[in-house]
Amino acid sequence: MNDAASPLGILAGGGELPRRVARAAASAGRPVRVVVLNGFAATEDFAPHPAVAMRFGHAARMLDWLRAEGVRQVVMAGTVTRPSMLSLMPDAATLKLATRIGRAAFGGDDSILQAVIRVLGEEGFEVLGADRLLSGLTPKAGLLAGPEPDADAVADIARGFAVAGALGALDVGQAVVVQQGLVLGVEAIEGTDALLARVGPLRREGPGGVLVKRVKPGQSRLADLPTIGPRTVAGAAAAGLRGLAIEANGTIVMERAATVAAAEAAGLFLLALHADDVGGSER
Amino acid sequence: MNDAASPLGILAGGGELPRRVARAAASAGRPVRVVVLNGFAATEDFAPHPAVAMRFGHAARMLDWLRAEGVRQVVMAGTVTRPSMLSLMPDAATLKLATRIGRAAFGGDDSILQAVIRVLGEEGFEVLGADRLLSGLTPKAGLLAGPEPDADAVADIARGFAVAGALGALDVGQAVVVQQGLVLGVEAIEGTDALLARVGPLRREGPGGVLVKRVKPGQSRLADLPTIGPRTVAGAAAAGLRGLAIEANGTIVMERAATVAAAEAAGLFLLALHADDVGGSER
Repeated sequence: MNDAASPLGILAGGGELPRRVARAAASAGRPVRVVVLNGFAATEDFAPHPAVAMRFGHAARMLDWLRAEGVRQVVMAGTVTRPSMLSLMPDAATLKLATRIGRAAFGGDDSILQAVIRVLGEEGFEVLGADRLLSGLTPKAGLLAGPEPDADAVADIARGFAVAGALGALDVGQAVVVQQGLVLGVEAIEGTDALLARVGPLRREGPGGVLVKRVKPGQSRLADLPTIGPRTVAGAAAAGLRGLAIEANGTIVMERAATVAAAEAAGLFLLALHADDVGGSER
Repeated sequence: MNDAASPLGILAGGGELPRRVARAAASAGRPVRVVVLNGFAATEDFAPHPAVAMRFGHAARMLDWLRAEGVRQVVMAGTVTRPSMLSLMPDAATLKLATRIGRAAFGGDDSILQAVIRVLGEEGFEVLGADRLLSGLTPKAGLLAGPEPDADAVADIARGFAVAGALGALDVGQAVVVQQGLVLGVEAIEGTDALLARVGPLRREGPGGVLVKRVKPGQSRLADLPTIGPRTVAGAAAAGLRGLAIEANGTIVMERAATVAAAEAAGLFLLALHADDVGGSER
């Protein structure tokens, strides 16, 4: 049995994405096995696929089960906010894995994920990106919706990419809101919806700002990609923004048709572009 | 008349600091002239000192008045949030000044302030830091209150200085909250009180986090210094933090005795240290 015919393992965090990956694999005729992370997803969401719920502290058992089920390829999908180290309470076998993750666990979310991906590889699993299962999940460069951004918006996008890049390099966050060159808000772990909710009252007169989301520089594109969807567009419109700029081939657009339609209806641009193609400096 | 005997000009933004500067100068026998920035302070707050209220768009007239009053040294004190460029509506003379501030006005707050300080110098004024008038305003390095930070807190402080440094270098903000290596929140223009209010619900189990405030790398120490006070300590305590770390010789501590007492009462450490002395890397 080649790897692509073996059951697909899904390590499922929160949100819609893990279920969409399961549906895509199943409709391509591939068996699916799901490990749901306690507190982020529920096994019954994945019926009829075999699914087990495990907490972080039992990672070693989780891998044993996947192996016993014949899984050789895994997808990490969905949102996971890092729990406190003290709440992990790993068992003995997991503690051995954890020592290999080691100090990364005390960095930001991304450094943990990179270490998890490395350890999964060492344990014999191939980690696939969700976009390998769902085509069109991460749009290519281009204007997906709304009017072409004007020069002010382009300058805000450039500043947003620069600030988000610096933050991402420090493994802090993936999103930033910029208006007229001024950074209205920066995302840490609160998430983009909370960021958008708080920048509304901070907006200045004149042309509205831009939400920028980009992959952390050096981040693996196998997990924890920046994500937007219809709710992001609604939040951006409510905050008085003029558009969204996302990193091409690296930002997940959930419910793409609905997201594009929401942007069109609100008159917001939705632009996907490569970080290297963003003009201007950090000012 | 030497410069130090000439009337002291105060460009007053919001908050207590401008009034404290006025009181300190007056009690040293020095005449005071105040320009209050419309929307941030009121002339009557500075009675009996001559004070005029001017909006940004009339900067040139403001300088003419100060000159006519014999002012040669000015202090910029108090908080000013940058207005929208469109709300400035400068008059013709101010427009000439503005072109000398130029593109900086489209960067962050700090780049504007640097340009304003430069233009004030070119116009013949000497810009003094508020700490020249108020001794002890920006504490030297040392533990000001509470218990010595443990190793975890020291690591959080180091990460906070690294992240705040990167943000500050991009002229975004001066404050960050870190818990167990995880950045819970990053300040943009919303201010430290709002930052503290939102990180409370985001805190993880286990040892609490740390608020770090530092001067933006390369920032002039003549204006817009990071500031804390009793309210900051109250916000940090409410957010479940274990302490505050501030940049020595560069962070204003308002109402120092009350701030120290609040930290002691809440069991929070208050540590002033130099950015260069912060151990560890950004991880």
